[in-house]
Amino acid sequence: MPLNGQLIIGYDRVATASSFRATDAARGSQLDPPFSIAGAAEVARACALAAAAFDPYRQADLATRARFLETCAARIMGLGDELLERAALETGLPRARLEGERARTVGQLRLFAQVVRQGDWLGLRIDPALPERKPLPRADLRQRMIALGPVAVFGASNFPLAFSAAGGDVASALAAGCPVVVKAHPSHPGTSELAAGAISDAARECDLPSGTYSHLSGPANELGSALVSDPRIKAVGFTGSRAGGLALTKLAATRAEPIPVYAEMSSVNPVVLLPGALQTRAEAMAAGFVASLTMGSGQFCTNPGLLIAITGPGLERFIAAAADALAKTAPGQMLSANICANYQQGVARLRAHAQLTHLASGVAASAGAGTCASGALFQVQGQQFITEPALAEEVFGPSSLVVRCRDSAELQQVLSHLEGQLTATLHLETSDHTIAAQLLPVLERKVGRILVNGWPTGVEVCHAMVHGGPYPASSDSRVTSVGTRAIERFLRPVCYQDVPQNLLPAELRDDAASRLRRLVDGQYLSP
Amino acid sequence: MPLNGQLIIGYDRVATASSFRATDAARGSQLDPPFSIAGAAEVARACALAAAAFDPYRQADLATRARFLETCAARIMGLGDELLERAALETGLPRARLEGERARTVGQLRLFAQVVRQGDWLGLRIDPALPERKPLPRADLRQRMIALGPVAVFGASNFPLAFSAAGGDVASALAAGCPVVVKAHPSHPGTSELAAGAISDAARECDLPSGTYSHLSGPANELGSALVSDPRIKAVGFTGSRAGGLALTKLAATRAEPIPVYAEMSSVNPVVLLPGALQTRAEAMAAGFVASLTMGSGQFCTNPGLLIAITGPGLERFIAAAADALAKTAPGQMLSANICANYQQGVARLRAHAQLTHLASGVAASAGAGTCASGALFQVQGQQFITEPALAEEVFGPSSLVVRCRDSAELQQVLSHLEGQLTATLHLETSDHTIAAQLLPVLERKVGRILVNGWPTGVEVCHAMVHGGPYPASSDSRVTSVGTRAIERFLRPVCYQDVPQNLLPAELRDDAASRLRRLVDGQYLSP
Repeated sequence: MPLNGQLIIGYDRVATASSFRATDAARGSQLDPPFSIAGAAEVARACALAAAAFDPYRQADLATRARFLETCAARIMGLGDELLERAALETGLPRARLEGERARTVGQLRLFAQVVRQGDWLGLRIDPALPERKPLPRADLRQRMIALGPVAVFGASNFPLAFSAAGGDVASALAAGCPVVVKAHPSHPGTSELAAGAISDAARECDLPSGTYSHLSGPANELGSALVSDPRIKAVGFTGSRAGGLALTKLAATRAEPIPVYAEMSSVNPVVLLPGALQTRAEAMAAGFVASLTMGSGQFCTNPGLLIAITGPGLERFIAAAADALAKTAPGQMLSANICANYQQGVARLRAHAQLTHLASGVAASAGAGTCASGALFQVQGQQFITEPALAEEVFGPSSLVVRCRDSAELQQVLSHLEGQLTATLHLETSDHTIAAQLLPVLERKVGRILVNGWPTGVEVCHAMVHGGPYPASSDSRVTSVGTRAIERFLRPVCYQDVPQNLLPAELRDDAASRLRRLVDGQYLSP
Repeated sequence: MPLNGQLIIGYDRVATASSFRATDAARGSQLDPPFSIAGAAEVARACALAAAAFDPYRQADLATRARFLETCAARIMGLGDELLERAALETGLPRARLEGERARTVGQLRLFAQVVRQGDWLGLRIDPALPERKPLPRADLRQRMIALGPVAVFGASNFPLAFSAAGGDVASALAAGCPVVVKAHPSHPGTSELAAGAISDAARECDLPSGTYSHLSGPANELGSALVSDPRIKAVGFTGSRAGGLALTKLAATRAEPIPVYAEMSSVNPVVLLPGALQTRAEAMAAGFVASLTMGSGQFCTNPGLLIAITGPGLERFIAAAADALAKTAPGQMLSANICANYQQGVARLRAHAQLTHLASGVAASAGAGTCASGALFQVQGQQFITEPALAEEVFGPSSLVVRCRDSAELQQVLSHLEGQLTATLHLETSDHTIAAQLLPVLERKVGRILVNGWPTGVEVCHAMVHGGPYPASSDSRVTSVGTRAIERFLRPVCYQDVPQNLLPAELRDDAASRLRRLVDGQYLSP
């Protein structure tokens, strides 16, 4: 179905009386069509449908659920150029990036289809009855994970495909057996509608209940608040600003029935350049750093916003090379005028800071390119950084800060003062292993992912990935929002005691359980 | 070490200037010795020690950690009669129950020692590097779970051993690698101190850091608030009242760094008596019900506080037999004067309710037995129950309410109106399977454990158990507080990207990982 600006509530397209328009990210002009704004009635309708869909959807057999996810992927690919062109208009992201993001989007839908089929997420556990046990017999106890209920997912501004209407939160919630109600990000409502249409159509094609998936749009925060407040919603997925994530977390905690919010918020992704690495390859690291910093105009959660190193000739070489490389980078298109303005303000604040040195900036944007931004690099002394926590706050975009430490003790002190982060990176040579071994436990307590000799941008969708981290990087450090473990966010265990075979869930029955991996009396049995 | 009323902060015994006394549960008199009251300074000291212990404790090898848990169990058994006699004095619980509870306490410590050694909780995942992959190579990605940090555990009034200073929350947090600071329940501070001393001594015996375990006592809520507010505490375990659990949850959510609270709060544990079961064995069910209701004076989280059935001759037979059996039950000692007074008030409120019928009570307590309570049974019509949510609230103690439904539709309606519960039970015969199959999805959404033809009291500590459930049964339906899965509450994942072998955690290295089960490229490899 071509873009028509309507809400998608289950199988139905719904127009409302009020509307808003998307903005051309590069030109600032308004785009067609107008998009219907969802109000309280539409939120209630979508949530009621989702609640009605919950039992039949979660009870659909695993093969059907997996086929649904694969059908979503196929239909997204089937949207072809229309999706990529609309996304380029609304976000200003280049075609190659959007093709890559689409590949990631359908790749994770297909990966979760595999996860669903494989069935490990069911967490099957069986402790058979011990009728002769003394002093008391043991009942027959069986456990499986079931879906939490309808999930609200918020589209992210910086991933119009991979973390929006058909993104990672949606794929993992649907995989878990949860109906989903999406709130589209208002900066790319058309991209979102197209992807959402593919999912809604896939649900119908697979004979899944209408309320399995809905898609609501609107420019105001009230829409998201209404959605999170609806008593039928049982969990929330969000990727965005700290202010936004905290507002939703607070709202969810004050409901009559509090619910989990998985908010992936902010991170400056500290990169530690250890002395041996600086001595051996300062210039190569500088090139890698500038590429990671300016990739996608720095609009990644994992952008390297902080470099930490011990003062010395190696660091001077790194800074000289990084400043040189950065000065040659072209300005980059940002996602929206709002994001660009916030970035410019952040950089201006750093430039005006008396204790910071401005090391370099990228090529300035021409006067007409209103939403383009240039990279920026600053430096500060370790003690100043420690005494001023605001310096560790994220400036969303291609800006980074070098923290110069006197010695390894100060470096460790700087790391200890950091808030929770998505990632931390160590650049090291063999001569740095001793200090690295001391830093690793500190980093483990601070971050979800530790990298060595790489750059944090680029998040692999696989089994071992962790995209999350201690607060405030995310609202819940116990989970990841990327990778197959993300499904666990939407599950809870249920135990069945002495339930007759024919009333047990199929996967827990004696004759059926052998098809899936299960823990029997503490021992894993594989298929 | 004999009972001395001092706080236990790491290896040290600490006396403070202020003190309180325990009460003899049966006689109401005050017991020796006086117990030191922990203030802000002691909270800070215990939390600082726990924070200092965190890295060395979580990095201790698994064999040491397992041996520590087994040493805790051995030392608790080594306390011998002193522990049982003190517990009997402070709680009024009979010797046989306390012996059983001690067996459960040491049993779960030993079970978690097995869990620690087996290493599945580490959740090892390895996605090997794919340097030749197009368009981009894949890095080497490895994941393991690590401990959250120091955990605050609140002793429960109704399980002086199994859910207190050495109980399930403590065992699972220590198993996860988290240092623990316990707030003793003020109604059994001596029992708590004895068990805590065993753990502190075991930590020293196993050469674990002093701050691995601390034990604070005091009669006021301020102690618990100070503990949960301490920034070094990273998670909370609590079993108790809804008001208490919600206060801690709220406090934890408003910290600068919010932390998870695992509060197991309240449940009326609905028991559904289906028509075939009533017709076949009404009298036998009545006997089982009264035994479960009055066991331990009804002071279990899983006490059957609600019976739901369709009106008919079978239900009349059940009620007659249950009333008859209940009328013959002796009054039971309650845990404290406060709990007893709350129970009496709850029963008086039900007796005064115009729409409720009082069906039976147990033998009245004699005038002198101030903290003894008698069982009570009431009935109400289904529609009245639905319109008055307060009737579904827990009356902690041996009181239960029969909800009479006109038909199976009303029965389903009654179940749909219930809040989250720890358990739900179906009594059924083969002729009831059709209606049972309709009710099961409803119950799955409401509870953590579904039983058939049993009674909810008695919670097996095993792999498949779920003790938890949707809010307000617990604050977090995604976990269980009993059984081996309880360890997951205190863990979070960390990903290691391209980390050199010698800097990786030992269990993730190529040469060591083969000893523990791990997911490699999506396939499980077993030892």
